[in-house]
Amino acid sequence: MKMDSRLVLALDETDGEKALRIAESVGDIVDAIKINWPLVLSEGPQMITRLSELSEVICDFKVADIPNTVRLIVENSVSRGASAIIVHAFAGDDSLRAAVEASGDAEVYAVTEMSHPGGRMFTAPNAEDMARLGVECGVDGFIAPATRPDRIAAIREVIGDLKILSPGVGAQGGKASDAISAGATYAIVGRAIYGAEDPRAAARAFAEDIRTVL
Amino acid sequence: MKMDSRLVLALDETDGEKALRIAESVGDIVDAIKINWPLVLSEGPQMITRLSELSEVICDFKVADIPNTVRLIVENSVSRGASAIIVHAFAGDDSLRAAVEASGDAEVYAVTEMSHPGGRMFTAPNAEDMARLGVECGVDGFIAPATRPDRIAAIREVIGDLKILSPGVGAQGGKASDAISAGATYAIVGRAIYGAEDPRAAARAFAEDIRTVL
Repeated sequence: MKMDSRLVLALDETDGEKALRIAESVGDIVDAIKINWPLVLSEGPQMITRLSELSEVICDFKVADIPNTVRLIVENSVSRGASAIIVHAFAGDDSLRAAVEASGDAEVYAVTEMSHPGGRMFTAPNAEDMARLGVECGVDGFIAPATRPDRIAAIREVIGDLKILSPGVGAQGGKASDAISAGATYAIVGRAIYGAEDPRAAARAFAEDIRTVL
Repeated sequence: MKMDSRLVLALDETDGEKALRIAESVGDIVDAIKINWPLVLSEGPQMITRLSELSEVICDFKVADIPNTVRLIVENSVSRGASAIIVHAFAGDDSLRAAVEASGDAEVYAVTEMSHPGGRMFTAPNAEDMARLGVECGVDGFIAPATRPDRIAAIREVIGDLKILSPGVGAQGGKASDAISAGATYAIVGRAIYGAEDPRAAARAFAEDIRTVL
């Protein structure tokens, strides 16, 4: 995945036409657009391909299954045009390796902790162990919350030069430039861009904020 | 979900026409057909609806995300005809509650441990805690491996009268009647039915084996 603006749009929009319109308006500003299952369920897996013509696409599918199912999900997503896919480290080493093997030239990012209150219960105590496991299994990067720069720094210490994607910028309170300063490779912004009256202007503002610390 | 044959088909087939043909041939024998993301990615979410006309459908989507994303995935799956959806307990109490609230009349089953070698790393130490959490959050049932009747019994002790679905019967070595005897509500069979030369005869044989212990 390219590293230019260091900005990723979380396109959590389930209306296909709206999603494409937003992608068209910010595709040349963001480095990638991250989508999730709700869009696939509402508009079909063809959305991966259509969006990949406008931007690199990260399939935030939080895959957490047995190795063979992981392989099928990753292979299909990549063949449809995904540049990266997000998996749960929680599913263990064999599932992580299956994702890496199936990804080909696409990248694999691992979730090692979830930042919503309930998500912390079982992931937080294991986050560093899961990050070490991800490194061993050959993933390309990790997810760490922009709202907790201390967690970005802690994961950065474990993973060396690998990438970090940080969600939680904008509506959830994180600042893009703070996340990048703390060690994130990409800041992920959702609603504050796709829900803005002028998504292109909003994306530009986030990209400029990031540029101040590059 | 009905409880008649106590047999569930794991339809891990990614070819839509084949999947529908198999569903048609066993729809009146099994209590439900369980599908996963690879079929949705290859053939589209319409498969949920088409299969729901032949059998009850369990969406084995192993959802593990923030509450709002969980809600969107569950709502869409149920509106397309799913009778049940499978989520990961490790996403925590708020995500489990979001699934239960969004499911309406459909059922929610929680994964508390994964039985593939890597999956045991982070789930096995927390399986009972996650099962207790699932009960508190109002899920309808849990997943426990047919290959480990001791685990079925352990989960049964925590969850009282709630349901247990047990995968791993057939090709993976578990026996359907053993899983039911150990406390499972449904035995899940995949390849040994959908990969059989005569899926209908294979499903009948599994249903008969279960009947011996009911």
